[in-house]
Amino acid sequence: MLIQTPDWVKHAVFYQIFPDRFAQSKQPHKRLLKNASWQDWHEMPTLQGYKGGDLWGVTEQLDYLQNLGITAIYFTPIFQSASNHRYHTHDYYQVDPLLGGNSAFKELLDACHERDMKVVLDGVFNHSSRGFFFFHDVLENAQHSPWVDWFKIQDWPLHPYDENFPANYGCWAGIRALPEFNHDNPEVREYIMEIAEYWMKFGIDGWRLDVPFEVKTPGFWQEFRDRVKAINPEAYIVGEVWGDSRQWLDGTQFDGVMNYLFAGPTIAFAASDRIVPQQVKGPSYEAYPSLSATEYAEKMQQLLQLYPWEIQLTQLNLLASHDTARLMSIADGDRQSVKLATLLLLTFPGAPSIYYGDEVGLPGGLDPDSRRGFPLETHWERDILECHRQLIALRHTHPALRTGTYRVLYAEAGIYVFARILENEEIVVAINTETTPANVAVFTNDLKSQPNQVLYGDGIARWHSVGESIQIKLSLPERSGCIFGI
Amino acid sequence: MLIQTPDWVKHAVFYQIFPDRFAQSKQPHKRLLKNASWQDWHEMPTLQGYKGGDLWGVTEQLDYLQNLGITAIYFTPIFQSASNHRYHTHDYYQVDPLLGGNSAFKELLDACHERDMKVVLDGVFNHSSRGFFFFHDVLENAQHSPWVDWFKIQDWPLHPYDENFPANYGCWAGIRALPEFNHDNPEVREYIMEIAEYWMKFGIDGWRLDVPFEVKTPGFWQEFRDRVKAINPEAYIVGEVWGDSRQWLDGTQFDGVMNYLFAGPTIAFAASDRIVPQQVKGPSYEAYPSLSATEYAEKMQQLLQLYPWEIQLTQLNLLASHDTARLMSIADGDRQSVKLATLLLLTFPGAPSIYYGDEVGLPGGLDPDSRRGFPLETHWERDILECHRQLIALRHTHPALRTGTYRVLYAEAGIYVFARILENEEIVVAINTETTPANVAVFTNDLKSQPNQVLYGDGIARWHSVGESIQIKLSLPERSGCIFGI
Repeated sequence: MLIQTPDWVKHAVFYQIFPDRFAQSKQPHKRLLKNASWQDWHEMPTLQGYKGGDLWGVTEQLDYLQNLGITAIYFTPIFQSASNHRYHTHDYYQVDPLLGGNSAFKELLDACHERDMKVVLDGVFNHSSRGFFFFHDVLENAQHSPWVDWFKIQDWPLHPYDENFPANYGCWAGIRALPEFNHDNPEVREYIMEIAEYWMKFGIDGWRLDVPFEVKTPGFWQEFRDRVKAINPEAYIVGEVWGDSRQWLDGTQFDGVMNYLFAGPTIAFAASDRIVPQQVKGPSYEAYPSLSATEYAEKMQQLLQLYPWEIQLTQLNLLASHDTARLMSIADGDRQSVKLATLLLLTFPGAPSIYYGDEVGLPGGLDPDSRRGFPLETHWERDILECHRQLIALRHTHPALRTGTYRVLYAEAGIYVFARILENEEIVVAINTETTPANVAVFTNDLKSQPNQVLYGDGIARWHSVGESIQIKLSLPERSGCIFGI
Repeated sequence: MLIQTPDWVKHAVFYQIFPDRFAQSKQPHKRLLKNASWQDWHEMPTLQGYKGGDLWGVTEQLDYLQNLGITAIYFTPIFQSASNHRYHTHDYYQVDPLLGGNSAFKELLDACHERDMKVVLDGVFNHSSRGFFFFHDVLENAQHSPWVDWFKIQDWPLHPYDENFPANYGCWAGIRALPEFNHDNPEVREYIMEIAEYWMKFGIDGWRLDVPFEVKTPGFWQEFRDRVKAINPEAYIVGEVWGDSRQWLDGTQFDGVMNYLFAGPTIAFAASDRIVPQQVKGPSYEAYPSLSATEYAEKMQQLLQLYPWEIQLTQLNLLASHDTARLMSIADGDRQSVKLATLLLLTFPGAPSIYYGDEVGLPGGLDPDSRRGFPLETHWERDILECHRQLIALRHTHPALRTGTYRVLYAEAGIYVFARILENEEIVVAINTETTPANVAVFTNDLKSQPNQVLYGDGIARWHSVGESIQIKLSLPERSGCIFGI
C-alpha cells in the first residue's frame, strides 16, 4: 500500500508544552478561581498541586514561539483532570477550567492557525481517572451500574483508594487512579472515536496518543486513523511508543511515534560520559551507556531502515519530554552536550520537538522535576536559546534538512559526519563530541557538490580531489557541531 | 415591598417527573449504551442502579400529559450524576447521558414550549458528589488542590469511601457521597449563580431548589433570585422547605416552597384512620395523626395566613413526591382517600403538582419504593385517572379555583365546605370524609350567588333563605367530594 503522512509535519518544528508550567496569563480573564494560591512557579515541582499555567498564557507567548521558529505545538493533556499533568482524564469534552476551559482553547487554536501554527493534543484513551463519570458510576453503584462493562472489573467490591485491598479493576501500571477502559466493548470504542472526532471538528491538527500499545483490540487504531483522517486528511497521528514501532507504523495506524529510538542514542553520543546514570534510569530509552560515533551511526542507520521513509519524515523526534529528565540535567549541566544534541535533532529527518524550556537551558531531573515552571528571562541560558533559534531557522531555510536523504559520511571515535541531500541541495553536518579540536579527512563520492559554506558553527571544510576520490578536510573545534552548505 | 411572583404559576398544573422512572423512549436514538441491561422496569426499585427512563421518553409522552391537563413539568435532577435519583451532581452543565444528554433536553424543552408547557429543573446547590470535578481534585491532591476552599474540609486525610474513619469534610446529612459546598467562598457563590444563569438562558422556566435552607450565606438566595429574574422575570423559583418558610417567602428569595404544610394535613384529613403510620414516618410533614374537618380547617387557615397572598398563589402544592410515600400506599390502597385529597389539591390556591404515576393510582411506600417505573396502561386505575382529568379540567375552566379567595364555610367532624371566590365567580367545594352519607346545613352570608350546579361529584346543594341568613343544604355521599358552581 501507498503510505501517506501529513506533509506539514515534514516541515514542522514542534514545541511540547506542559500546560500547567509554561505560562500563566498576565491579562485579566474570567476564572473560576479568582484568588488561587498556586504553588510557587519557581519552586521545585511536586507530584500534587498546580502552578497555574493556562492556555491564555500560551496565547500570550505565541510571538515568542513564532520568533523561535516553532510551527506546531504538542500539548500534553489539556482536558479536565485532577492532576497537574492531566493524564487522569475526568472529562474528555472539557478543557480544564484551570487552563481556561474550552473557550480559552478555542481562542488559542484560532490564534495559532492565524499564524499558520498547528496544534496537536494528547489523547489518553487507554485509561481514565477515578473521578471519570462512567467509572465513578461503577464506584457508586457497583454491580448495578450500567457502565460496568466499560472497564476491566475483576471482582467486587472495588477499592479505588484503599491500598490495603486489591483494586479489583484493571488499572494502568497498577495505579488505581487510572482505571483502564475495556476497548473490546464496542460502546467504549465508539465513545473514544467520537471524542477524537469531536476535537478534530473543533479544529485541532492531530492527536498524540498516550500508551497506545496498551490497546490490544484489533482494528482499534486503524479505525481511529480512518475516522480522524476522514475529517482532516492532513491530521497528524503520533503514538507514544518508545521502542520498535513497526507494528503501528504500517501506514494504517500512526504517522509516527515519539522517537525515543532517536533520543536515547543521541543523548548517549552527545553527552557521552557526562551522563548522570540515575537521570536516564526508568524511562524506556537507551540514553546510557555512552556511544561512540561509530555506534551512533549504526543506531541511526538501523533506525532509518526500520520504517518507510514517508513515516521517517513524520516521526516526532525529541531529546526530552515530560516523561524523561531534561538533557541539561542528564548531562550534569554541560551546555555543549545540549547544543550538540540539539544540532543532531534539528538536522534529522522527521519533525523535531522541543520540550518547553529546553531552549533556554532549563534543568530538570526525572518527573516531577522535569516539569518546572518556565524560567524568568533573567535565568535564560542565552547561548542555548541562540543555538536553538539558529538551528531552527536553518532547518526552515534548507529543505534538505527536512526532507533530504540522510547519508553517513564518517563516524569514528567522537567524530560524526553526515549529509542531507535533496535534489541539488547538499548539506554536510559534522559533529566533534571530543574535548579536543579535530581534523579529519572524509572521503566521499556521494555528493555532487562541495558544501563548504559555514551555515552554523566554527568549523572549516576544505574539499580536495585525491585521485578519483573526493576528500573533505574538516577542522572542528572541540565539542562542537558545524553545518556546511553550498 | 411589592411582592411579585410569576403569573403563569398561578394558573399552572405541575407534573413531577423522576426521569429514570417515567418513560423510556421507544424511538431509536444515538446512545452511549446500545445494549444496556437496565433493571426491570416493573420490579421494585432499589437504591442503586437504573431502570433507564430518558428525556426522549418524556417527549413522547407529552400528548398524554397535555391531555391530562398538565401545563408545567418539574423534573427531579437531570444533570449528570452517578445515582438513579441524580441528587449527587457530577456535572452541572451536562444533562445525564443516560437521559439523552443536553441535546435530548433541548428537544424536550422546545417541544414543551411549543405546547405552552413550562419546565422547571431541580437545582442541587448545597452539595455535589464525590466524583464532582472540584471535589475529586481535593480527593486526588489533598492540601495541594486549589479547590480546597470550595468545600468544608475539616481535617486530613479525607475518607470519601471508608466508613471506618471520619469523612473529614462537611457532607449533607452525614452522607459522604454528598460533600457540601462552602457557599461563603465568593468563587463558589459565583459558580452556582452562573449555573443558574446558564440553564435559564438555555430556556428553562425556573428552578426547584433542593434543601436551600442549608445554605446560610447571607444574601445568597436573594442574589440567586435577582440573577435568575434578570434573565426571565417570569421564572419560577420554588424551594424545598418543609415547614414554616416565611424566612424565604419574603418576596426577595423564593416564589413559593414545596407545600408540605398543605400535603401533611390534607392526607391526615382525607385518609384519616386509613393511614399506615410507618409510611409517613421520616419525611418532615404531619400526615399523621388523622385530622377532623375542624382541625383541618384550622390548619389551612393558618397556612393561608402564613404568607402573602401573592406567594400563596405560587406555592407548589402536592400530596406526594420522591421524598414521601405515595398517598395510595399511605392510605393502604384506599382509592377514595386518593380522590378526596386530589380534590382538595386541585381546589387549593397555589399550583398543584402531581407526582408522576399518582394519577393512575401507582402505589409506592417510602424511598426507594416511591420511585417505581410508570405502570403499563393495563395496570392503570382508570377511575383515579378520570378523577384527575376532571379536576384538572375544572381548575383550568374556573379562574376562581386558581386565584379566587379561599373561605371556609363549614368544618365539623368529617365534613368540610369552603368557597373559592373571584369577582362574580363563586365556587363551593364540599367534602365528606365519613363512611356514611351526610346531610348538612351550612349558613353563610359570604356569597353573592348561590352555586348549585354540580361541577364534580354526586352531591346536591339546595339554597334557602332563613330569616336574614342564607343556608345551603348539602347532601353528600359517603367519602366523596363535590364542587358546585353557578
